[in-house]
Amino acid sequence: MRIDMIQQTLVELNGATADIEASALISTDGLMMASALPQGMDEDRVGAMSAALLSLGERAARELARGALQRVLIQGERGYVIMSASGTEAVLTVLAKPNAKLGLIFLDMRRAAESLARLV
Amino acid sequence: MRIDMIQQTLVELNGATADIEASALISTDGLMMASALPQGMDEDRVGAMSAALLSLGERAARELARGALQRVLIQGERGYVIMSASGTEAVLTVLAKPNAKLGLIFLDMRRAAESLARLV
Repeated sequence: MRIDMIQQTLVELNGATADIEASALISTDGLMMASALPQGMDEDRVGAMSAALLSLGERAARELARGALQRVLIQGERGYVIMSASGTEAVLTVLAKPNAKLGLIFLDMRRAAESLARLV
Repeated sequence: MRIDMIQQTLVELNGATADIEASALISTDGLMMASALPQGMDEDRVGAMSAALLSLGERAARELARGALQRVLIQGERGYVIMSASGTEAVLTVLAKPNAKLGLIFLDMRRAAESLARLV
């Protein structure tokens, strides 16, 4: 099943580094496609925030002449929200711990986003 | 004059690396305090987009349990929008070129944000 393969890819991404706490795949129109979230994290909340960030990120990139949106990163004192395009139809959202090594997470996310784009 | 020193700090930040195209200091309530923008870039547009990103970034960080907002990054095909807290009263926004070295820009922004926080 395609959805199982998508789900499996997200679970593997979460396992790739201890710094990744949660991951989800969202359609570019802002709807949840699949997620691998820890107990107690609300899928609707992750989906809604991802959709809002995607929408404003696209607008900011356009208005400030940065071209088509590729990535959004929100860093808080207690960790990161990172979103990357996965093909043209979907966006991969990851929640990561504070002090996460961004270079490694960006690499793992790029690989997962490419795999997911082939599955969507 | 304090405003001249703020302006000078922004000009120096733009000169610190060739990858930084523009910089601006915005109050945490979303109003422009000072900017060093290239010809043809609209200050109101930079201010409005910074304020919107700041507001949604704070909300996303809170709703997704990431704590107090420290940084927002939007990456497009034609470059970056990067925002960092500068003390508790202001936010530093930078526009950078595609392929910019993020580690260097984050360092230059942190130093400038600390200087600016003392001036605000």
